[in-house]
Amino acid sequence: MVATERNKVIGTRPVRPDGADKVTGRAEYGADVRLPRMLYGRVLRSPHAHARILGIDASKALALEGVHAVVTNADFPRLGDDLVDLGETFAPFKYIRDNVLASDKALYAGHAVAAVCASDPHIAEDALALIEVEYEPLGTVMSVHEAMADGAPLVHEHMHTTEMAARFVPSDNRSEDFSNIASHLRFELGDVEQGFAEADIVLEREFETSTAHQGYIEPHNGTAFWNNDGEITVWVSTQGPFAVRMQVAKLCDVPVSKVKVVPMEIGGGFGGKINTYMEPMAAILSKKTGRPVKMIMTREEVLIGTGPTSATYVRCKIGARRDGTIIAGEAYLAYEAGAFPGSPVGAGAGCMFSSYDIPNLVTDAYDVITNKPKVSAYRAPGSPQGTYAVESLIDELAERIEMEPMELRLKNAASQGSRRVDGVAQGRIGSEEVMRAAMESPHYRSELQGKNQGRGVSMGFWHNAGMESSAYGSLNTDGTASLVLGSVDIGGQRAALAMQFAETLGISYDQVKPLVVDTDSVGFNGVTGGSRTTFATGWAVYEAAMDVRRQLEERAAAIWEVDRDDVSYGDDGVLRGPAGDDGEARSMTFAEICGKLGGSGGMIQGRADVAPTTVGAAFGCHIVDVEVDPETGKVDVLRYTAVQDVGTAIHPSYVEGQIQGGAAQGAGMALTEEYYYRDDGSMANSSLLDYRMPTALDLPEIETILVEVPNPGHPYGVRGVGEVPIVPPLAAIANAIHDATDLRITSLPASPRALLEQLQPEE
Amino acid sequence: MVATERNKVIGTRPVRPDGADKVTGRAEYGADVRLPRMLYGRVLRSPHAHARILGIDASKALALEGVHAVVTNADFPRLGDDLVDLGETFAPFKYIRDNVLASDKALYAGHAVAAVCASDPHIAEDALALIEVEYEPLGTVMSVHEAMADGAPLVHEHMHTTEMAARFVPSDNRSEDFSNIASHLRFELGDVEQGFAEADIVLEREFETSTAHQGYIEPHNGTAFWNNDGEITVWVSTQGPFAVRMQVAKLCDVPVSKVKVVPMEIGGGFGGKINTYMEPMAAILSKKTGRPVKMIMTREEVLIGTGPTSATYVRCKIGARRDGTIIAGEAYLAYEAGAFPGSPVGAGAGCMFSSYDIPNLVTDAYDVITNKPKVSAYRAPGSPQGTYAVESLIDELAERIEMEPMELRLKNAASQGSRRVDGVAQGRIGSEEVMRAAMESPHYRSELQGKNQGRGVSMGFWHNAGMESSAYGSLNTDGTASLVLGSVDIGGQRAALAMQFAETLGISYDQVKPLVVDTDSVGFNGVTGGSRTTFATGWAVYEAAMDVRRQLEERAAAIWEVDRDDVSYGDDGVLRGPAGDDGEARSMTFAEICGKLGGSGGMIQGRADVAPTTVGAAFGCHIVDVEVDPETGKVDVLRYTAVQDVGTAIHPSYVEGQIQGGAAQGAGMALTEEYYYRDDGSMANSSLLDYRMPTALDLPEIETILVEVPNPGHPYGVRGVGEVPIVPPLAAIANAIHDATDLRITSLPASPRALLEQLQPEE
Repeated sequence: MVATERNKVIGTRPVRPDGADKVTGRAEYGADVRLPRMLYGRVLRSPHAHARILGIDASKALALEGVHAVVTNADFPRLGDDLVDLGETFAPFKYIRDNVLASDKALYAGHAVAAVCASDPHIAEDALALIEVEYEPLGTVMSVHEAMADGAPLVHEHMHTTEMAARFVPSDNRSEDFSNIASHLRFELGDVEQGFAEADIVLEREFETSTAHQGYIEPHNGTAFWNNDGEITVWVSTQGPFAVRMQVAKLCDVPVSKVKVVPMEIGGGFGGKINTYMEPMAAILSKKTGRPVKMIMTREEVLIGTGPTSATYVRCKIGARRDGTIIAGEAYLAYEAGAFPGSPVGAGAGCMFSSYDIPNLVTDAYDVITNKPKVSAYRAPGSPQGTYAVESLIDELAERIEMEPMELRLKNAASQGSRRVDGVAQGRIGSEEVMRAAMESPHYRSELQGKNQGRGVSMGFWHNAGMESSAYGSLNTDGTASLVLGSVDIGGQRAALAMQFAETLGISYDQVKPLVVDTDSVGFNGVTGGSRTTFATGWAVYEAAMDVRRQLEERAAAIWEVDRDDVSYGDDGVLRGPAGDDGEARSMTFAEICGKLGGSGGMIQGRADVAPTTVGAAFGCHIVDVEVDPETGKVDVLRYTAVQDVGTAIHPSYVEGQIQGGAAQGAGMALTEEYYYRDDGSMANSSLLDYRMPTALDLPEIETILVEVPNPGHPYGVRGVGEVPIVPPLAAIANAIHDATDLRITSLPASPRALLEQLQPEE
Repeated sequence: MVATERNKVIGTRPVRPDGADKVTGRAEYGADVRLPRMLYGRVLRSPHAHARILGIDASKALALEGVHAVVTNADFPRLGDDLVDLGETFAPFKYIRDNVLASDKALYAGHAVAAVCASDPHIAEDALALIEVEYEPLGTVMSVHEAMADGAPLVHEHMHTTEMAARFVPSDNRSEDFSNIASHLRFELGDVEQGFAEADIVLEREFETSTAHQGYIEPHNGTAFWNNDGEITVWVSTQGPFAVRMQVAKLCDVPVSKVKVVPMEIGGGFGGKINTYMEPMAAILSKKTGRPVKMIMTREEVLIGTGPTSATYVRCKIGARRDGTIIAGEAYLAYEAGAFPGSPVGAGAGCMFSSYDIPNLVTDAYDVITNKPKVSAYRAPGSPQGTYAVESLIDELAERIEMEPMELRLKNAASQGSRRVDGVAQGRIGSEEVMRAAMESPHYRSELQGKNQGRGVSMGFWHNAGMESSAYGSLNTDGTASLVLGSVDIGGQRAALAMQFAETLGISYDQVKPLVVDTDSVGFNGVTGGSRTTFATGWAVYEAAMDVRRQLEERAAAIWEVDRDDVSYGDDGVLRGPAGDDGEARSMTFAEICGKLGGSGGMIQGRADVAPTTVGAAFGCHIVDVEVDPETGKVDVLRYTAVQDVGTAIHPSYVEGQIQGGAAQGAGMALTEEYYYRDDGSMANSSLLDYRMPTALDLPEIETILVEVPNPGHPYGVRGVGEVPIVPPLAAIANAIHDATDLRITSLPASPRALLEQLQPEE
């Protein structure tokens, strides 16, 4: 079925179905939800990064006119350690619960401690000041180094270090002592000691990256109504309505079917809108008041109270022969989990070396608790940081052996059958194709033009995800189909899925009307994340269309009164049957039979559930030119080209958009984005003026080159495309700065201040 | 599969899923729709019952500040005479169009002539007075007698009388002359002339009934938004979202897939909420303004501008042997269609004799145009009026031959194989069972207690409908299922359908969560009408559950690693497979496998489309005691018992509710409800103070007796139940009045005024 030549719809660039609503402002976001008798909730957050909560007295707040109820952690059920699959990670529910609202301790500055609802948001805001919380401040650990130091204050006082087994599920093996290290995961491939022994050149460095936020424009929001009959409805901006359903159900102690989650349009997520924050509070407040409760975060709350990605420490070593063959790699990774376990360090370790075929590898990955917000998924979670280390060392190796950096990469490129550090053999991958395309690109072949300029390159790998998806389509008499989806549209999925449905039925894009519905109205779908949606939900859509085709064949046979096996539905959308009395072969188009369904047994629906495992891993190669101002340390990105194996580009414009967006976010992590903490552990730059994400003015147009190596494990060759592009920018930019300045950048972001310290070190 | 004994869910009386929202006022009706920048539309209606429209000048209205647009018939496409099946009737689209907004002539007082939209409803109301319409009043025809008289003014100046063929589809045979008789339909069975020749007793009378309205509490409403991308959304109170979709699409000249109809909760319909009135106007106004337009009728508009049921004239004759065997029947029926063709006279003719096995029958049915609102379907459309004639004559026959009236009916009862006047042979029907149950009822066996009291009985028949339905269900990990429906819930369908889904899966009612969604989100469903929903959508639900069962069998086989054919899903909701290594037969409950679906290939959905033809016809027998006040002519209903064959009562409380509601509406038609017209053809009693529907204070508790003769043509034996109960009350009450007063009531309603004229005739 992987056949790009015959495709008529796939590969085109039709208009998005949600376009009109979005450009006219009619699209409905969480902030637009308005319900009769609605109350407004606000959250009281800990000013302390680590403090015991000795008591919460909300009586004065509750006495304020207009205040209706208060919720604290005590309102949630006392759940145990049951592991729950939240889409990308497994987490015990008590961690989710205690992150939503602190229990005995506040574990980071910004940790929610209580929430109040009132008849208007201003009264709710005023009421926060009337909630009296007695804190006993405790010592803090604000980095992996502090957290792992001997005698460090323990964030979770009875936490052992768990050895992680496959798929990041904890094993029974755990440390005797209490620790801030939540877990350790070791991958080992070949004989790394032997590998380094045989190496002619061994390079080793330490790298650090800062906490960085996904930076979605739309703040978190959640409105909940707990009806008198026990049915809960939640309106929310989320990547995973079914994940929110599960989390709310668990925290409200009801079965999942009692919760209906209505996904509103989403103003960005990038992994950060999978975990639940205010929805369970809003649900409990609604139960207490009998009224709907709406909660919206401020920008400050988004920064201090939701999940950014980990600050990281990586020590990395590579060993190579003189000819450039890399024969050994070793990495020690310590990623901040924030206040609760669950950093993406395992994925970081799994991905960092995977662009290459290196026979001997070992990684030790540590998930480290700190007094900072619990991290969330952020676009290829964990991979950018680990890759930054490896790709910096490869750049250094190229320099050392005087080899062209892309030649060195190509020499070591992973290909089908190469083993990744986790032992998984690569399938049909496009790493070499990507490298060659990068090398042949106009950008790579161009020359730098000025002083203080440099060029860097980096590869990036992401394994992508499959998980579970469903789809449901129904036909209309006018020769069109409605396509009902449960995968939230974060980047053009409505179009990309409608296109696959149309392609499978051999009809045009305009004949398919996709829509995203609530959790009651469609089968289960995992989160829109892990670059899985166009792949897995696309597959479900394909199967649902095939279910339609089978039924149309049966119906055509009935209409023609011929044997069912003599009828076939062609990829051109035409049903064909045996010759009739007139000697002519029978045929009927999709539109024609749609007009006849009503009179011949009823319209037709197709449905499918899939859980595909043949996920296509993907690679990107970014090329970046920078100019460094030696007076200020400011780095300007002059030119940026992102090359990526996208499998099959269903809607090339959206693929390009994903690549451009990912590259921009990676550039932000490389150059400007970081959390500044005050000595007391509170965030000093919790606004978008001070937390500096790159804007359109900061970056050039990002050029994209789409390489299409179809994934043989998908009907249309789809690979996930959304996450890979955030992986290469960190190293590519660091390598470009090195090219411009000769400085090895081992700590990101390379902000003007940080760079200036290296460019003009104080004596 | 018709097995009532094993049923666990069917026949119970669980709580309705929409209960909490309805009792707390949270259920959302059309009047609750509020959209950003919404405009409000109002309709200008003709004061004339018949007038040529010489010109419409809206310029002054459009100049009023706040007025945004005006729509007239000229804004609709010029459609031809294409017949379109709107669910219950076939009508040419130009009739629908010209009823929505008058074209060259206003055909009834209240006929919409133009509509205006403005920033608030008061401005829109004010603007109506500024629209200048030049009328040329024409002569009117306000009854079938006037309309059929020689030289009558022609409502449609070029209308021929069409001879109707089977299924009420016009034949090519039509009158030469122009006429107000839109069509004629003749049914003939046996040799009626011979039958009357052999009869010992022949009775003949003329009967008349008045125009009566369905009287739904919620007025018509419709909000439409025509988006910039050409997608139209309509929020509306309707029995048929797919019928509205088709009508709006046609009148807006777009394919049906460009229209999404969102059915809001409905405050009654009874057949009257199938046709479209304001929705296409709102859509055109929205197109003109780029903003959503909301329109709501006043009560007066509902009465003068929507479709009540026909006023009728029926001349009926029966012939019987001395022993009571009825051997011949003949009827001439003329039903008012109102301003456009489409009275239910054909159904009236088809049903009136069908409670009995009469070998020789003929009916002549005339669909007659008058200058009154175009009639709509109203609960068993046409049957109450025809049946009133037959059952009055049977009462008279019983009196004449001194036979107990129910004995006479039982003697002539239709049974399986009896031919109806339209030639259709009755299937397995419960007419005899219903008659016997009535005769054995406490009410029938009781004695009347006072002066001026009388008792009447009447049978009633309705053929019920099948049409097309779909259903879609998806399973949840917690062992529940979501059931997505496209059949609007007008009387407990959510519960009755969830119960059939639960029964088929062998799970409890609480494990199924039914919901009604918009036309984009589910497969096609015909209107909720014709007593078809619990039957046909119930069947779709059954098939969707069977689709789930098959997939669960496949999945269980995969989980157990056994042959698929060795696994079966039991009606108890347990999957059973061959014995395992431990020698024990494998088994798994529905809830257990639901918990395992995610890990074994994904969740499961079921879907089905059905168009069943094995519809079960149904019978009712009503017994009523009245007391007539000889001073005032007022009739009090003292006791009322309704017996009905309901096939299988899925949710007995809802079945009883349907029967009680139908009986109450029939009592209204019998006693108080009528349209009073002034000499100029305008309605004089267009408010609910003056149009007198019976309230709870006017009627006793209506006792119900459910007879269950399962329909062999349905998996659970379902017959439609909603319409039959409006059929018997007219004759039952007329017969009771005769019993009390000795007066034969041949014109309904038997209002105090009308009755007094007969009780105390002026000399």
